[in-house]
Amino acid sequence: MSEFDYVTAMDPEALRRDYPIGDAFRRALVGLSRDELRARQERDFRRVLDFAWKVPFYRRLWGAKGIEPGDIRTLDDLPKLPSYDKADIMQSVADHPPLGDFHGQDAHPADRRPQIIFHTTSGTTGKPQPLLFGPRSREVQNRLLARQYLMAGMTRDDVVHSVYGHGLINGGHYVRETVQHWVGARFMSAGTGVETRSAQQIFIMREFGATAIIGFADYIKRLSEVAREEGFEPGRDIPIRLICAHLGSESQASLSAAWGGAAVFDWYGVGDTGIIAGEFPDRTGMHVMEDAHALEIADPDTGLPVAPGRLGDMVCTCLFKDDIFPIIRFNTHDVTEEVTGESPLGLPFRRIRGFLGRSDNMVKLRGINLFPTGIGALLVEQCEAATGEFICRVHREGARDAMTAHLEVRGTPDGALKDRLEAALKTRLGIEIAVALEAPGALAALTQVESRQKAIRLVDERR
Amino acid sequence: MSEFDYVTAMDPEALRRDYPIGDAFRRALVGLSRDELRARQERDFRRVLDFAWKVPFYRRLWGAKGIEPGDIRTLDDLPKLPSYDKADIMQSVADHPPLGDFHGQDAHPADRRPQIIFHTTSGTTGKPQPLLFGPRSREVQNRLLARQYLMAGMTRDDVVHSVYGHGLINGGHYVRETVQHWVGARFMSAGTGVETRSAQQIFIMREFGATAIIGFADYIKRLSEVAREEGFEPGRDIPIRLICAHLGSESQASLSAAWGGAAVFDWYGVGDTGIIAGEFPDRTGMHVMEDAHALEIADPDTGLPVAPGRLGDMVCTCLFKDDIFPIIRFNTHDVTEEVTGESPLGLPFRRIRGFLGRSDNMVKLRGINLFPTGIGALLVEQCEAATGEFICRVHREGARDAMTAHLEVRGTPDGALKDRLEAALKTRLGIEIAVALEAPGALAALTQVESRQKAIRLVDERR
Repeated sequence: MSEFDYVTAMDPEALRRDYPIGDAFRRALVGLSRDELRARQERDFRRVLDFAWKVPFYRRLWGAKGIEPGDIRTLDDLPKLPSYDKADIMQSVADHPPLGDFHGQDAHPADRRPQIIFHTTSGTTGKPQPLLFGPRSREVQNRLLARQYLMAGMTRDDVVHSVYGHGLINGGHYVRETVQHWVGARFMSAGTGVETRSAQQIFIMREFGATAIIGFADYIKRLSEVAREEGFEPGRDIPIRLICAHLGSESQASLSAAWGGAAVFDWYGVGDTGIIAGEFPDRTGMHVMEDAHALEIADPDTGLPVAPGRLGDMVCTCLFKDDIFPIIRFNTHDVTEEVTGESPLGLPFRRIRGFLGRSDNMVKLRGINLFPTGIGALLVEQCEAATGEFICRVHREGARDAMTAHLEVRGTPDGALKDRLEAALKTRLGIEIAVALEAPGALAALTQVESRQKAIRLVDERR
Repeated sequence: MSEFDYVTAMDPEALRRDYPIGDAFRRALVGLSRDELRARQERDFRRVLDFAWKVPFYRRLWGAKGIEPGDIRTLDDLPKLPSYDKADIMQSVADHPPLGDFHGQDAHPADRRPQIIFHTTSGTTGKPQPLLFGPRSREVQNRLLARQYLMAGMTRDDVVHSVYGHGLINGGHYVRETVQHWVGARFMSAGTGVETRSAQQIFIMREFGATAIIGFADYIKRLSEVAREEGFEPGRDIPIRLICAHLGSESQASLSAAWGGAAVFDWYGVGDTGIIAGEFPDRTGMHVMEDAHALEIADPDTGLPVAPGRLGDMVCTCLFKDDIFPIIRFNTHDVTEEVTGESPLGLPFRRIRGFLGRSDNMVKLRGINLFPTGIGALLVEQCEAATGEFICRVHREGARDAMTAHLEVRGTPDGALKDRLEAALKTRLGIEIAVALEAPGALAALTQVESRQKAIRLVDERR
């Protein structure tokens, strides 16, 4: 076996040419027509499709629907293919241990099998899901995220504090590679509050001059409170100017205010795909990286595309994954909607609103679809004193199901606040949801915001 | 500022040529004469020396001794220079926050300043020490460690389970880069027991087919016990064939036996320098990577070279660090001795015994220098029932200082064991040390073996 070399395997020349970042991204993509973009997408889709037909997982998935290679020719045919999700990946792993039969390493000639880069999801319940990448596709993901960070204004002069977790979890390693390989900023891999306790994170940020924070918004918000507990004014004593975060239920305005007015940019992606879409300085939703992804927004019940501007599941096809694990119609079960109209930046990319909830975390209450993260965002938006922490509890109330939204608020709330918030929920969602006001920190044990990558926002007590 | 690119910055062509690994390492180095090696060392030393003279830290350190640039011309002049240690680095950081004045980033032209790769030591007491690398020198370290792993028999087909910690700590990121960039094996970045709890680590190893474990021996040994607690036979149910570890007090034989006879290879390095020396298949000590390091073994009291075969501090000069933080005469305070005679592999490298204790953790008891790790290794070697866990306690006994070595043993020890071990210590060390036998697991709270990278082996109760 010849000597292994990751640099050769990633093919840096092709990466620089095919996935431009920074100024080169603007030069190559601004003004490009949808037709030119589409031609490129079709070319890449054919390559990924050819690969997928050699992978047992897809032959089985598609064969079960009677689909044959000639049936799918262009991206227009995508909705003819069944989508699949994490449960199908886990079933593949269970049936074909240890790595499932979806990666396709064996589809390559024996002397050219790509290295498998192995991580897992952060899921803390049951078996972790393996996340598999090849050197080339891994670095495409890294460049796409670098493109986002650079568009958000990150530079080589920044000191970037990361609160993404490590261990087997992909997140921390992904962002470190991105910043180290393609941005060049100084990178501080602090990790979660379990890896580096929160007070120590504040010390590190202050001591080593952090100017940017990246991670999940819940915990970045929590760190601003810890800074205050330690006697520092976030934004002044720790002059953060940029936050690239997954907002979830946290509002952009409140996260920015918590850190003294830092610019906050949101982006979306899942472990398997890497970044799919990100917010650019125009602030009109997230641009989908359509030179690398074909994204559908699908009805959670029928699987068919929704009308533009309607809520639906994000179903992703990665146009660059031709080494390890081709991804064609992977349903993330994360819900979004398309932002209609042209990109104000002159990019040929469509835009989405970003993460608006999980369709498999959706609670149906008396016929109405409720997303706990959406409810949290609505409450925080309505209430100045909210810390941003909340949790929704579904329970039986006499003979019917009911929901109570617990919200942390600072100070002593006046008696009218609870009524006002309940009225707001009734107006916006068309259903009665009780609101319970809690002291700051009171929900930490339930939401596990300090120890989990994604805080818990729903407790279903009916089960 | 032009677009940043880590691949360009690391200069892969030069790395492949100058720091061969695998078969290329054997081809290039076996049979090379000491003179040829020395010529190369001198060339690299001059480059690093030129860089160091531009760095304020060294100008101050050397200037205080009246040393001028012309005074130091070859490696023979090294002992004329003062050594320094971690305390000097911490003082530099305190005087010149946030990164000290030892990195020399400013010594490069403004448009060619290397990126600083930032990590910290795992030290849990007080301020962490910053560890600073440039892209090129970082990848030299990565290739030197890959050289070690490949010499130990690791291949692209291995599944490598790493128990090095992440967060800001360097270790986990260093080994991941090494395996991912230059070995190509499948890598599982489990981290410490805090990042991935021990029972889950066993599950992961079993589920995903680990064949090799890398990390600190204390915790790798502990994992074999956890495997048994979970009902698995280490080595059979989890067929580990290779362990690359820092042995410390753990004996090679007992660690191998704990994992069903796996081949165990030891290597030595510190955070700042990366790997310095490693064990090769000849098993006659560790070969020093002298194409990258000039290693002195110095008397802890005088700082001068000890006679060959005598114990001394490892004082390291890195011949490849010409981008960020030149290292010239860094005293690790780790103690070793040279193995005399020619390399059985025909390599031009000198060999050392490996880590034999810390001179700043050395306890002087009635005039005799004692190293707690050495005492632990001696006890474990003498006692079949030992789990490998121990801690040395220094305390006052009436009017004098005394030491008690606490040792975990399995089963019910016969009455003679304690006396036999105490007699062995008396014979080998020439001093009376009391032995206390403990049940398995009884010392975990004191040694903190599950949560720390390096277990605590000394408690000094006199302070």
